[in-house]
Amino acid sequence: MRGYSQDTDKYLNRLRRIEGQVRGVQRMVSEDKYCIDVLTQISAIQSALDSVALGLLEDHLGHCVMAAGNDPEVQKEKIHEATAAIARLVKS
Amino acid sequence: MRGYSQDTDKYLNRLRRIEGQVRGVQRMVSEDKYCIDVLTQISAIQSALDSVALGLLEDHLGHCVMAAGNDPEVQKEKIHEATAAIARLVKS
Amino acid sequence: MRGYSQDTDKYLNRLRRIEGQVRGVQRMVSEDKYCIDVLTQISAIQSALDSVALGLLEDHLGHCVMAAGNDPEVQKEKIHEATAAIARLVKS
Amino acid sequence: MRGYSQDTDKYLNRLRRIEGQVRGVQRMVSEDKYCIDVLTQISAIQSALDSVALGLLEDHLGHCVMAAGNDPEVQKEKIHEATAAIARLVKS
Repeated sequence: MRGYSQDTDKYLNRLRRIEGQVRGVQRMVSEDKYCIDVLTQISAIQSALDSVALGLLEDHLGHCVMAAGNDPEVQKEKIHEATAAIARLVKS
Repeated sequence: MRGYSQDTDKYLNRLRRIEGQVRGVQRMVSEDKYCIDVLTQISAIQSALDSVALGLLEDHLGHCVMAAGNDPEVQKEKIHEATAAIARLVKS
Repeated sequence: MRGYSQDTDKYLNRLRRIEGQVRGVQRMVSEDKYCIDVLTQISAIQSALDSVALGLLEDHLGHCVMAAGNDPEVQKEKIHEATAAIARLVKS
Repeated sequence: MRGYSQDTDKYLNRLRRIEGQVRGVQRMVSEDKYCIDVLTQISAIQSALDSVALGLLEDHLGHCVMAAGNDPEVQKEKIHEATAAIARLVKS
């Protein structure tokens, strides 16, 4: 059971929409669309991925991290792991 | 003819790989995989999209912007349009 | 008492270094240095700020969020607040 | 003479404001202000730096890159250099 488990369908719908957007960019490239319009679509996909990631992160913090029990070492590890994931999001 | 036109196949291959990665994240969510592992995959997709976008941008600058002719107003417009696309990438 | 309180000196040193880097960019601009070199310095400042922010965030999660007591509503609020701060970092 | 040379004062004003914002964050840390409020200020500095960088980039594209003469190799080099700077901005 994960922090996001009760929202699996919601996340799957959003990921399927993102999959469709990626295929849309493939079509634009095949049809030789103007570069800036292709870039605009890629930025839209990036923003959609950001919001999926932030949702998963909030669920993770509220479930897996908060439920890390009272052992300070386990808590510290969970928080360090979550911060490393946040760092990857900030840098990607 | 676009800046990327001669590399269309290269971009389509990379975009199909990204499409596959998005489907991979869907599978992870359906199989209730650990949140951090899902987030790691999303960051990998973000980085792959960044590099496609930067490639398209370099092609665009080298082709559409440089070939904007000698009219300073047209040049200025093309550069402003490219900078706005860069801003969206920086913010997404 | 904050999550970062015991590391105040560490954070102040890093922030003073960043302040010095910003003054360095001012000098470069006054001395009409090459644009790309100025941009490289700005990216270095951005990375330094990212790492200060990620440090503060880890401290905050480990202290303020974990110590949010057992009231689920308070926990939820603290996590939502932290996620909103993460979203601002991802977008900036 | 750089792309930004005629706007040096404008950039210096914005960089001095950013310097003041960094000192403001130092004060918040010294006064043990709430972590989220400190993070909010750091995101504001990041956004201010983004807009300085994007301004410098637009000036650079419009001046140094466009004036790269008719030698395709020199143009290619200038564009590759600019794209590398954009990549650092996107990643920082």
